[in-house]
Amino acid sequence: MALVDALVLERQHELALRSIELPLEVGPGMVKIAIHTVGVCGSDVHYYTHGRIGPFVVNAPMVLGHEAAGTVVELGEGVSHLKVGDRVCMEPGIPDANSRASRLGMYNVDPAVQFWATPPVHGVLTPFVVHPANYTFKLPDNVSFAEGAMVEPFAVGMQAATKARITPGDTAVVLGAGPIGVMVALAALAGGCARVIVADLAQPKLDIAAQYQGLIPINIRDKDIVAEVARLTEGWGADVIFECSGSPHAWKTIMDLPRPGGCIVVVGLPVEPVAVDVAGASVKELRIENVFRYAHQYDRAIALIASGKVDLKPLISETFAFKDAIKAFDRAVEARPTDVKLQIKVAAE
Amino acid sequence: MALVDALVLERQHELALRSIELPLEVGPGMVKIAIHTVGVCGSDVHYYTHGRIGPFVVNAPMVLGHEAAGTVVELGEGVSHLKVGDRVCMEPGIPDANSRASRLGMYNVDPAVQFWATPPVHGVLTPFVVHPANYTFKLPDNVSFAEGAMVEPFAVGMQAATKARITPGDTAVVLGAGPIGVMVALAALAGGCARVIVADLAQPKLDIAAQYQGLIPINIRDKDIVAEVARLTEGWGADVIFECSGSPHAWKTIMDLPRPGGCIVVVGLPVEPVAVDVAGASVKELRIENVFRYAHQYDRAIALIASGKVDLKPLISETFAFKDAIKAFDRAVEARPTDVKLQIKVAAE
Amino acid sequence: MALVDALVLERQHELALRSIELPLEVGPGMVKIAIHTVGVCGSDVHYYTHGRIGPFVVNAPMVLGHEAAGTVVELGEGVSHLKVGDRVCMEPGIPDANSRASRLGMYNVDPAVQFWATPPVHGVLTPFVVHPANYTFKLPDNVSFAEGAMVEPFAVGMQAATKARITPGDTAVVLGAGPIGVMVALAALAGGCARVIVADLAQPKLDIAAQYQGLIPINIRDKDIVAEVARLTEGWGADVIFECSGSPHAWKTIMDLPRPGGCIVVVGLPVEPVAVDVAGASVKELRIENVFRYAHQYDRAIALIASGKVDLKPLISETFAFKDAIKAFDRAVEARPTDVKLQIKVAAE
Amino acid sequence: MALVDALVLERQHELALRSIELPLEVGPGMVKIAIHTVGVCGSDVHYYTHGRIGPFVVNAPMVLGHEAAGTVVELGEGVSHLKVGDRVCMEPGIPDANSRASRLGMYNVDPAVQFWATPPVHGVLTPFVVHPANYTFKLPDNVSFAEGAMVEPFAVGMQAATKARITPGDTAVVLGAGPIGVMVALAALAGGCARVIVADLAQPKLDIAAQYQGLIPINIRDKDIVAEVARLTEGWGADVIFECSGSPHAWKTIMDLPRPGGCIVVVGLPVEPVAVDVAGASVKELRIENVFRYAHQYDRAIALIASGKVDLKPLISETFAFKDAIKAFDRAVEARPTDVKLQIKVAAE
Repeated sequence: MALVDALVLERQHELALRSIELPLEVGPGMVKIAIHTVGVCGSDVHYYTHGRIGPFVVNAPMVLGHEAAGTVVELGEGVSHLKVGDRVCMEPGIPDANSRASRLGMYNVDPAVQFWATPPVHGVLTPFVVHPANYTFKLPDNVSFAEGAMVEPFAVGMQAATKARITPGDTAVVLGAGPIGVMVALAALAGGCARVIVADLAQPKLDIAAQYQGLIPINIRDKDIVAEVARLTEGWGADVIFECSGSPHAWKTIMDLPRPGGCIVVVGLPVEPVAVDVAGASVKELRIENVFRYAHQYDRAIALIASGKVDLKPLISETFAFKDAIKAFDRAVEARPTDVKLQIKVAAE
Repeated sequence: MALVDALVLERQHELALRSIELPLEVGPGMVKIAIHTVGVCGSDVHYYTHGRIGPFVVNAPMVLGHEAAGTVVELGEGVSHLKVGDRVCMEPGIPDANSRASRLGMYNVDPAVQFWATPPVHGVLTPFVVHPANYTFKLPDNVSFAEGAMVEPFAVGMQAATKARITPGDTAVVLGAGPIGVMVALAALAGGCARVIVADLAQPKLDIAAQYQGLIPINIRDKDIVAEVARLTEGWGADVIFECSGSPHAWKTIMDLPRPGGCIVVVGLPVEPVAVDVAGASVKELRIENVFRYAHQYDRAIALIASGKVDLKPLISETFAFKDAIKAFDRAVEARPTDVKLQIKVAAE
Repeated sequence: MALVDALVLERQHELALRSIELPLEVGPGMVKIAIHTVGVCGSDVHYYTHGRIGPFVVNAPMVLGHEAAGTVVELGEGVSHLKVGDRVCMEPGIPDANSRASRLGMYNVDPAVQFWATPPVHGVLTPFVVHPANYTFKLPDNVSFAEGAMVEPFAVGMQAATKARITPGDTAVVLGAGPIGVMVALAALAGGCARVIVADLAQPKLDIAAQYQGLIPINIRDKDIVAEVARLTEGWGADVIFECSGSPHAWKTIMDLPRPGGCIVVVGLPVEPVAVDVAGASVKELRIENVFRYAHQYDRAIALIASGKVDLKPLISETFAFKDAIKAFDRAVEARPTDVKLQIKVAAE
Repeated sequence: MALVDALVLERQHELALRSIELPLEVGPGMVKIAIHTVGVCGSDVHYYTHGRIGPFVVNAPMVLGHEAAGTVVELGEGVSHLKVGDRVCMEPGIPDANSRASRLGMYNVDPAVQFWATPPVHGVLTPFVVHPANYTFKLPDNVSFAEGAMVEPFAVGMQAATKARITPGDTAVVLGAGPIGVMVALAALAGGCARVIVADLAQPKLDIAAQYQGLIPINIRDKDIVAEVARLTEGWGADVIFECSGSPHAWKTIMDLPRPGGCIVVVGLPVEPVAVDVAGASVKELRIENVFRYAHQYDRAIALIASGKVDLKPLISETFAFKDAIKAFDRAVEARPTDVKLQIKVAAE
């Protein structure tokens, strides 16, 4: 154990930038990473404001942060695909490699996953972390730390795009233009869609989406999404609908959006069970896919960023110094519609 | 047009066995079939008792019956794969071959489908019908007319089993042991499952399922289906769940039945939107498939019956003469739990 | 029948721009199109130079050309999705909508397909053609006739990319940078790949590919493709290999290129059976897909061009006036490595 | 290490039943198993007769045998899903759980797999083995040790049936009725096919296949397989072809067997590269899948045997006592066409 600085959620509503004991021994197959940049995620903010997410309750002080990039500073025994000095980003979830789900290649649905900043597991808003090399990914020279710290939320978009089984040239609809909605839209576009209709009530969010060629913003305060999708697809419907709003309201008309034989990918989670028009899904023989975090997406996500197909930089709204980490969280609590992603630079200049 | 006998639904609650004018010209690509046996379907009965199913309303006298087998008696121009005397069964839905859905191979979701005994289209409880040769399928010598008339409901089971994308050796659960539930269970078993757990409240229905090796009946009046599935799968969950009950109640615990990464195939339709545990579907990354009738299943269904892999004969509960067709319907209205399928023999001995 | 001008292949080695009788009646479901631009395809050229392709022999004068765009000038009965004046491009193959393959959604493998400029079917290097509306596709305003005439070869690339079942972020390899290889590479990139390695011996062809961000040219005269792919994928192998060279030589090392569980899509056809390392395919459990023309790709191809994701304009090497059509073919016979696509503008200014 | 009896291949052509030092320590996650029955596999015999298989050379004495069932006699730390006394069968390959292929769920194509009786790894023709619990599978009460020892070869059939992605009611063809061909045929039948045409030259092999309802034997000494498949499928072709002969001859006409859009699964490996009709595969847009051992098939295979859908007992031709193990191998060398599987009972009565 080592005494290090960290952004600690002491309890609901109370953050402290203080020292804490964290384990930093580098075991076999592990690497030690100097954290450079950490993004602020909605779940971090939710633990801050609510002290819990569903069954996960903050009962003891917990370091926040799970969207991270940094530099390898030490290698454990047996690590061969990384070296000291490599710039990297990390998957925040560590599964049991021998669980049944992991062996089937679905480590994200392994119930034993240990996930950063999910009680009681500490996050990485702290200068160092020790992590399995297998879940640590080298960043190419043309991918910055800031982009590296965006890989985690983008991986959710990638998982959604992968589950959709996009056919090249598909038309998609994304319901909800929040940070995850935009990530999903960009992943769907890079993943083969010709165009992605993005629907939201908040014009500033749509304006951010509108910067990207291929994203078609629709403000559902002004326009009927069903009519717009019908118009844009000549009455046929969209191939894939990504539900990213988590709003029960979205479910009221969602079956009117896809084409016969189309697909709905559910990313946003309503808090309560939601009324679903099963007959509407039946008559079109829809396929409905569900997404839980991601598996095997980091290398693919990095490849798309490195190749220039996906540009996440416009989504980084502001970067805070580590000493201002609490300010970053308080800003996040404001939920400005113009903010997509706030980041904290942990590394000193 | 020709004046022929038929079982006519005059209006809600009123059936008549009487003569009616029906078109019997044999155009190009069509065949004329002497009807031998017709099964009584729940939808036929529902039109009788309710006068409508959803948007389809009986506004004029309509011949009932759509589960049919018979003998080819005349060939239209250009028909080459059938000949006079062939014993056949027929798909009751006639799609527009040039619709977008049909061209994509999904003719079942073509909104222009004309379906027997769906207002205003007449059914086939009458001695003859003219039908497209493409939707008329030859019965092998070892498949009886009675079995041929079972192909229609079995095709629904086949569509469900196909949508599930069964991996050989899967464990499935069928919720609801009504006629369609049993058809789905048999299709799932023949389609690759090692075993199919069939759940219902009605013991007579479960007793019928229990005749088949590989079907495991569970009476949910006595036993908790979630616990039973967990027990039979060592806590992992089933690979595929077929929801065939149409009951909102089934949706309350359905997410507890599949394994991580498993699949739910929705066959039964609740009348109203149903409360769905989206978060429960997410954490397991479930795939949910919806079924609407069937496409491209008749030849496969017949092949499975002919090969001996599927035996539908135990499901034929009683056969009525054509003159007793109304009695058959009144018996169907009773909904005896020991009745799976009632059939009407239209052909004279 | 009407007497019209056309580029006629009289017999092997002999082209004539002359009048010919062609059927131009507009039947139900058909549209009449004024041809604007026609691309010169390798198969057109091969009929010119060899008088045959496999079993298809030019036994009578045949109009060449099958990559076409134009303007609707007359509508047959029942056509509703097009109107006079619509700018369109057309699929050159007309299947039998009632064939078994068509009904399954695979009309491209229907043996009864009638394909333009495939003996004895005439092509469209002529001012007008009558074509099924179902195989005629409206061009958006921002897609030119020249691009519209590129949809046909690009659809082959789309079919290959679709068959590959690309996972977003995949790395692909295209063997052979001829016109089809480049189309495949662009479709793979738009269809979800992060990067596409393009291998060829001819540097001018690679230089054209290199204009596109995401395409990585490798000259196999200088470099070992197996070593390069291993280097670029850190020894893992590429996710998808598109064999577009048709060269038996490519098959010698092709199994060394994919990753375990990867895919090979065969687009290029060797004239003779080719020696395949079956054991090499086995040890990696490769999936090998084969491509024959395309099905259901035109609307998707047009959507990708219209959205700006795919830019085919740099591939149009030169455009000839209709009166110079024979010159266009003689230039195509030269097979300059800097030529990707030659087009003929049939419409007068 | 412990000194135990074993059937040792000293070198090519020389077997000895003698004592040998083997490691029998039970580490964490491992179980110790008393071997009951071991099947004789073609690969065991091939090491005996040839001293090598491809790159795997018998350079030191090696215990043979990898198709095994037995009883758990000791549990390592952390093993919870098995207990002492459990009757089990074991996967002979032990992958690296942290390899890239394993993490993706494809542990069979992990190059680091350690496989029993593949030099230099010892097999299990010996009274005890220590094995990872994760690759040890409990046998239900109604599955005998002899059947348990058949799970390994049947798993190859299951892998082939899984790769085929059978649609319920498919017609399959198996080329080659040797032990693996029969296993593949039974897996295909249980996995959803309506019927499986089995082709071979040896009538005794076909007679064994003919015992199973749904398997259709064709002696290709008498009959043309292409014509027979066309006849049985009314000219359409079979949905799936399993190539299990490993004969280059089979590849000469294999493309004539599948339907348009059909599939070939390659199980048999020709020693040399084989001439493949790529154009024939293209015109039907065939999918070709390759099989290497199996992954995630043991529990599924056991489930199918336990449910009664698959009966492997008729394939056990003769059982030898452990003391007669060399006789079993010499009998296997005879390659009697009436022998499918020879087994050795290692356990004393």
